[in-house]
Amino acid sequence: MNFTGSNILSVEQFDLDSIQQIFATADRMQPYARRQKRTKVLDGAILGNLFFEASTRTRVSFGTAFNLLGGEVRETTGMESSALAKGESLYDTARVLSSYSDVIAMRHPKSGSVAEFAQGSRVPVINGGDGANEHPTQALLDLYTIKKELAYHGHLIDGMHICMMGDLKYGRTVHSLSRLLALYKNIRFTLISPQELAMPDSVLAVLDQAGHRVTITDQVSGSSDADIVYQTRIQQERFTTPQEADQYRGKFRLNSEIYTKHYKPNTVIMHPLPRDSRAEANELDNDLNQHPNLAIFRQADNGVLIRMALFALTLGVAEQVEKYDCEVNWYSDKRNSY
Amino acid sequence: MNFTGSNILSVEQFDLDSIQQIFATADRMQPYARRQKRTKVLDGAILGNLFFEASTRTRVSFGTAFNLLGGEVRETTGMESSALAKGESLYDTARVLSSYSDVIAMRHPKSGSVAEFAQGSRVPVINGGDGANEHPTQALLDLYTIKKELAYHGHLIDGMHICMMGDLKYGRTVHSLSRLLALYKNIRFTLISPQELAMPDSVLAVLDQAGHRVTITDQVSGSSDADIVYQTRIQQERFTTPQEADQYRGKFRLNSEIYTKHYKPNTVIMHPLPRDSRAEANELDNDLNQHPNLAIFRQADNGVLIRMALFALTLGVAEQVEKYDCEVNWYSDKRNSY
Amino acid sequence: MNFTGSNILSVEQFDLDSIQQIFATADRMQPYARRQKRTKVLDGAILGNLFFEASTRTRVSFGTAFNLLGGEVRETTGMESSALAKGESLYDTARVLSSYSDVIAMRHPKSGSVAEFAQGSRVPVINGGDGANEHPTQALLDLYTIKKELAYHGHLIDGMHICMMGDLKYGRTVHSLSRLLALYKNIRFTLISPQELAMPDSVLAVLDQAGHRVTITDQVSGSSDADIVYQTRIQQERFTTPQEADQYRGKFRLNSEIYTKHYKPNTVIMHPLPRDSRAEANELDNDLNQHPNLAIFRQADNGVLIRMALFALTLGVAEQVEKYDCEVNWYSDKRNSY
Repeated sequence: MNFTGSNILSVEQFDLDSIQQIFATADRMQPYARRQKRTKVLDGAILGNLFFEASTRTRVSFGTAFNLLGGEVRETTGMESSALAKGESLYDTARVLSSYSDVIAMRHPKSGSVAEFAQGSRVPVINGGDGANEHPTQALLDLYTIKKELAYHGHLIDGMHICMMGDLKYGRTVHSLSRLLALYKNIRFTLISPQELAMPDSVLAVLDQAGHRVTITDQVSGSSDADIVYQTRIQQERFTTPQEADQYRGKFRLNSEIYTKHYKPNTVIMHPLPRDSRAEANELDNDLNQHPNLAIFRQADNGVLIRMALFALTLGVAEQVEKYDCEVNWYSDKRNSY
Repeated sequence: MNFTGSNILSVEQFDLDSIQQIFATADRMQPYARRQKRTKVLDGAILGNLFFEASTRTRVSFGTAFNLLGGEVRETTGMESSALAKGESLYDTARVLSSYSDVIAMRHPKSGSVAEFAQGSRVPVINGGDGANEHPTQALLDLYTIKKELAYHGHLIDGMHICMMGDLKYGRTVHSLSRLLALYKNIRFTLISPQELAMPDSVLAVLDQAGHRVTITDQVSGSSDADIVYQTRIQQERFTTPQEADQYRGKFRLNSEIYTKHYKPNTVIMHPLPRDSRAEANELDNDLNQHPNLAIFRQADNGVLIRMALFALTLGVAEQVEKYDCEVNWYSDKRNSY
Repeated sequence: MNFTGSNILSVEQFDLDSIQQIFATADRMQPYARRQKRTKVLDGAILGNLFFEASTRTRVSFGTAFNLLGGEVRETTGMESSALAKGESLYDTARVLSSYSDVIAMRHPKSGSVAEFAQGSRVPVINGGDGANEHPTQALLDLYTIKKELAYHGHLIDGMHICMMGDLKYGRTVHSLSRLLALYKNIRFTLISPQELAMPDSVLAVLDQAGHRVTITDQVSGSSDADIVYQTRIQQERFTTPQEADQYRGKFRLNSEIYTKHYKPNTVIMHPLPRDSRAEANELDNDLNQHPNLAIFRQADNGVLIRMALFALTLGVAEQVEKYDCEVNWYSDKRNSY
């Protein structure tokens, strides 16, 4: 795939080659994210960071990624201040706002809206989440994390065993991640959820067609040789009563005791974040916070690398990043102590 | 007019010479806005982008203009987070916030507020819209667009024929634009609106005194040799019932059929944006989107040039912009494909 | 105190030496804040400006301070857009958001929240106000202002006389300022407030233990040789009825007449801002706006210097600021005309 000038709208755009290209670029972003050096390759470029739906972490992650390449960020949060609320079409908004920037990252509550916006945009558009539809940078950072965590243990994505647990019906991230994983070979999926929140048939069909082994269950047992356990949020609003929600959430929780009992010592723990730490939810307990296999904050770190890679690629500067290197002269030891 | 250190509060500040100075500077901003090169003339300068009333496009346009000159942007949106809501005077707010920046762009819902703020400001203030009062950068970008569009067809502003259509009573932009046009010679104005939404007498008096020819009508016919048709929004809240609003809006719509029937082939179509694309309003139809004479997105582009020019002029760097030129090394072909 | 990599959470961290270090650094920031020159010492660094509670002036002051050192700012305002609202712990928020920046300035409505956040942060955290608890940069800028204003009149903090007036019970700023002043010698405090809004015993104990002389009164008289009068806001919500509030507020007002009658000609007037200029409050009248001893806007200016100093110190670049000096080529005369 030739990334220069392209939109990044859906995980369905990618084949293994293009994923490899993104990951190789992301690898080269690490020294910048760690402040071992910095680059000015995008000095003077402007990101339009358009979050028509609020999302602090994703918005700041995109903005940081652009800053780390040397660029500036103009942004907007929420819909109230937007002409969209006064009946403007996404096409008009795109025509106007895209004239103000060199690339756009966009989140919007409506499914399909980012692709619609991209039709009117004069610059590349990166989907930062369009409702129930897609959030491709999350899927890429999850896959990139899986690759790096497995490599640390000497394994490949091909042939691995992943457990996905929790709300697999409404969890946008597990759908997109599954579609990306389907590109690899011989993966074993254990899908653990209440029956009412099972993985949709459309995703199962993709996995099946690609020849992966899928086990569907509502029991945590049977995952003892999983390489990855990908836990998700179970949102109360998916249930008719709070009692029903509590019952389910209690059953699909992950904590130190459950982890030790059901998983092998090297199983990597992932979660798309934010996790709900309130007692009634608590799908991933704080008692695992110091566990070396807890990869959830490394996922967030990897998100910056993936977004830097996508900016560098879509703006056609991926090969020139190091050419604009500068030194970092401020304190950053504490940053990388984790 | 000596712009350095001046506030830009009202279109009434300008004579033809100062307009010419702004437009000549705006012309020189085009290569930067098109990313053919970039400048660092304001590297290290800070814009205070104070939008006490939300307006995504105007806010981002000011911020982008400042970034394109190499500067940084600090900004605020809405009133809730502001000390103004706790009884602070505009004078105090100005004294404090102006110490944080080198120039200020400000929007505020209250008429006269920006001028009041400017009294306390230690840095030049540019009015980004103060309620029903003024929005001078919109008027300048409209006039600049008219000048460029007419020049493309080999014409001048002097002697042209402009139709203004829709809500001419509450439409702040047509008032300010008319006052600027009054400075030119021998213009023919056709003012098309429901009687209840006619151009105010105060504006008519200015046009009359300057010797322009004005026709007031509630019919689209009679505009067949117009060089410009400037369409505006008719907002439902100006009418007592939705039915009345619908009736009027139906009558003062512009679409491909009406355009072809009533205007000559070269008539340039303008609109202050946003346009309301919902079926019940739809004052400027999407079926004109591909028409080469539709200048509405070029207006938005010109807004960046005008705002860059005003920043360069008020900060006294207009003559040094090119001295700080740098190369652009990232992809920008798609940007200028429109 | 070794500032590099440290958090700035509370005024209780500071001894006289560390205060002296901050103030000496702040002094060196003045030419940058006045645009006599600029520095790029933090070029490429990123401030996470996290205002989970809105505060325009404090947020913009932190952002400006960072920009003036050459850095970039990513920020967030309010809680609604935050995962905190969905049950995320401050620890998780800190782990994630701190990976996006080099230093964090944070405000949050909950007392103790910033310290809690700092536990999870990978980068230094500066407290921008945590509810009723602390706002250390305000206390430092107040103390710095007192030092500079007294120096202008040839006096020292040691041995001075300060009046604090208004709501001394809920006014977070006077508590923190008092704790800092306690580090000096032989200060005379006149604490003027309604009995219901008197300085808390915990603060009085600190002053007493340090050997300062404290007079508690509900009368403005007796302050005729004060070097400083520090006026505060009396907020209506502290009283059971508006009438009671009005009565108190009327009594503890400061205006030109009261100032002239009760204070010596050189008494410096301070206020934490914003001041409430509505007639019913008006604790510090506009008729003092042109008075040379009114230091309230110099306080705001000093806030930028203090915040620049803290960024330079915590990021370990305080000694290198001048090494990255650049020229300022834009107009800034009006900036410093006050």
